[in-house]
Amino acid sequence: VDRKNIKMVLEYDGTQYHGWQLQKNALTLQAIVEEKIQVLTREHVTVIASGRTDAGVHALHQVCHFLTHSDMDPESIRRGLNSLLPEDIFVRQAEQAPLNFHARYSVKSKTYEYRILNREQPDLFLRHYAWHVPRKLDLAHMERCVFLLRGRHDFSSFKSSGSENLNPVREMIRSELHQAPDESLIRFLFEADGFLRHMVRNIVGTVIEVGSGRTTPDEFLKIIEAKDRKRAGLKAPPQGLFLTMVRYDHQA
Amino acid sequence: VDRKNIKMVLEYDGTQYHGWQLQKNALTLQAIVEEKIQVLTREHVTVIASGRTDAGVHALHQVCHFLTHSDMDPESIRRGLNSLLPEDIFVRQAEQAPLNFHARYSVKSKTYEYRILNREQPDLFLRHYAWHVPRKLDLAHMERCVFLLRGRHDFSSFKSSGSENLNPVREMIRSELHQAPDESLIRFLFEADGFLRHMVRNIVGTVIEVGSGRTTPDEFLKIIEAKDRKRAGLKAPPQGLFLTMVRYDHQA
Repeated sequence: VDRKNIKMVLEYDGTQYHGWQLQKNALTLQAIVEEKIQVLTREHVTVIASGRTDAGVHALHQVCHFLTHSDMDPESIRRGLNSLLPEDIFVRQAEQAPLNFHARYSVKSKTYEYRILNREQPDLFLRHYAWHVPRKLDLAHMERCVFLLRGRHDFSSFKSSGSENLNPVREMIRSELHQAPDESLIRFLFEADGFLRHMVRNIVGTVIEVGSGRTTPDEFLKIIEAKDRKRAGLKAPPQGLFLTMVRYDHQA
Repeated sequence: VDRKNIKMVLEYDGTQYHGWQLQKNALTLQAIVEEKIQVLTREHVTVIASGRTDAGVHALHQVCHFLTHSDMDPESIRRGLNSLLPEDIFVRQAEQAPLNFHARYSVKSKTYEYRILNREQPDLFLRHYAWHVPRKLDLAHMERCVFLLRGRHDFSSFKSSGSENLNPVREMIRSELHQAPDESLIRFLFEADGFLRHMVRNIVGTVIEVGSGRTTPDEFLKIIEAKDRKRAGLKAPPQGLFLTMVRYDHQA
């Protein structure tokens, strides 16, 4: 059988996993997906995702690909994997892609959502799915920060160690703040042509410092312009972060 | 110190527990709450809840009480317990109640909500918090059933074994069906002066059979009138069930 490139869309709850990427002695999403593909196709494959997600980070729409000689059709692979995978990982779609499709290198844009529970009392049903910020927040100041992030910037102030050698310039296509009708749930939405390591969590942590009154939107602009990680605020915790979309040029 | 009666309002995620009631060799909510009260007050107490919840069933508002000689004030007990309890149990309120207040015997009404995810695709983030029913449902037929349950009835058709000796007549004060704006989430709401064992789950399972077209609202009325458990449908699974309110005569 000729080699085929299978593209899959995955949904997962990251609570129980040490992130996407293979690690020794730790349960990761890549390890379990590769293991179940091996059970199904009897081939050892490497599954490439659009990007790593960290421990505790979730995905509503993560894209990955792998090369296989199996003669199973993509829908049979999808159903077979869903019967083998644990209940916190779900294959939404599987299809054959051109051999030159690459889940990471072909990315046109990625979208992340970050959820904050903003009320005094915690909600234990959201403990793994939102960051609980009990302080009163100034939404207008936060919206100003979110607006300032739009467009092409050097995002060095919001990178974490591990991304030193990457080009820190990214195009922020969408940067929005939404408040649920009951006002207690706040959602950040960021779409960019790429993200530096921990960039969303570093941005959110810093915007929350503005919302809390510890600093100002004017200072936030200076932090962006400083291109210096030491100027930004704390990193927001992982459980509020969801990868919600990955786009490709041809939507292949 | 004189003996005091402490009334508490608890919220819990039942996913990891074998229900409320003490069991040998199984982790239950009662066991862990009693253990943490003992750590805090150095007294062994028995905690009485408004009723048992089964394994996998959740509570947004469960009420319990216990008698103590501790001189800790209720707010200190509340904070102390919240620092000791695991993150899936939360004490919302604690207050001193009259000595004759009893969390079970003093109940005036209890309210349950049952959540159904009604769409073809499952949602893994709701896997522990809703029953996934992928079939198209006839909401008008289901609303008719929910209407028929209102008022005073002998609910024998919806009881499970273990409640044979109880009076099966209950007053259903509220019986409602709500659909979320995106139409995929359906919520049943039942308030009654008391519930038989598994009554809500047996009712929901039977109403879903009507919604699926396997039986009719007229047949549902006959099932109520038959007072015979063998006539009703399957029991709905536990993860969709939430205890949402317990009312007392004096709101003590």
